[in-house]
Amino acid sequence: MASGRFISLEGGEGAGKSTQVKALAEALRARGATVVETREPGGSPGAETIRDLLLTGAVDRWTPRAEALLFAAARADHVARVIRPAVESGAWVIADRFLDSSRAYQGGASGITDDDILSLHRIGSGDFLPDRTLVLAVPEDIAEARTAARDGDRPDRIGGRDREYHRGVARSFARFAEQSPERFRMIDASGDASAVTSLLLQALTDLLP
Amino acid sequence: MASGRFISLEGGEGAGKSTQVKALAEALRARGATVVETREPGGSPGAETIRDLLLTGAVDRWTPRAEALLFAAARADHVARVIRPAVESGAWVIADRFLDSSRAYQGGASGITDDDILSLHRIGSGDFLPDRTLVLAVPEDIAEARTAARDGDRPDRIGGRDREYHRGVARSFARFAEQSPERFRMIDASGDASAVTSLLLQALTDLLP
Repeated sequence: MASGRFISLEGGEGAGKSTQVKALAEALRARGATVVETREPGGSPGAETIRDLLLTGAVDRWTPRAEALLFAAARADHVARVIRPAVESGAWVIADRFLDSSRAYQGGASGITDDDILSLHRIGSGDFLPDRTLVLAVPEDIAEARTAARDGDRPDRIGGRDREYHRGVARSFARFAEQSPERFRMIDASGDASAVTSLLLQALTDLLP
Repeated sequence: MASGRFISLEGGEGAGKSTQVKALAEALRARGATVVETREPGGSPGAETIRDLLLTGAVDRWTPRAEALLFAAARADHVARVIRPAVESGAWVIADRFLDSSRAYQGGASGITDDDILSLHRIGSGDFLPDRTLVLAVPEDIAEARTAARDGDRPDRIGGRDREYHRGVARSFARFAEQSPERFRMIDASGDASAVTSLLLQALTDLLP
């Protein structure tokens, strides 16, 4: 595989993103690709230090505006130090969350406009975008059951927000997919893990060599 | 004194800003004002945690873009949690550095445009600006002698950059003052501390009740 690709997986809590990042990476490696698995917030040493500031502490530790800037700072470091160099070297980069999570969580649900989030991405990361964004969509009851089944994990500062907040996030992802159908694919992620992985691979067919 | 005011002191390393923040605060208190002294980056508990990320570590720890976003995030917290509430309660807030340091250090000297820095300030802090910005200007040799005389302090990640970088910063402050003469005053800070404090007070005459 000659040219690298950048794929982001998006969706709410309990959609199965982290499981699918691993499974998708394995499937692509089996096809001969070099694959880098990463996640946001974090994914580079600098961005991980910012992640600690974002995901620990009181729910109101940061104002929505400061939070949006911290996410954009972490993303700028992640893009410059990990994602862009890997793609330029020919690797596939699979990210558990990217820009669209900021748009859905900080933009759609906390009062910052989508234009503001996109401006932060232009200033921080030069408008670097995924070649494809896969939105894992699951009914609310399945997402809640999956989140509850995690062994002892407690929700972080953002995962712990209320149900109406998370509904707003889901609506935002669906709206972004409608606005940019060439970049986004909505994936029904309510089936078992291997079935979902097959759907993800199908949604990348045009990018595979 | 009924209405609060927000005053920022700007200038390069060794201009005497921290000395003058204290002296100016004392002079205003002697006139009956409630005064809050603060500094950037930092000035609020959240912003101080970001300050640690900014001022420690290797010189190339952050890309200029990530650095600009981190400064804007710290400033958003500082404005929302400390400066704006204090001014609204009727206090004078005297800050050792504010937005114009980002414009001069990240904007003028590291490749981010001034428009980008101003956009970050709009998104992060709603364009909250000082009522007056006092730029302490000193000849290069005096600044270097003052910096060298600090007892054992080593320059931080940004103070340690080279002489040409710091000349660019000084030119930027002078340009901002030309562009916004109503907000800025250039202050000759080469005299002794009490003489400089007198000049600062003169430059606030129209704001004093």
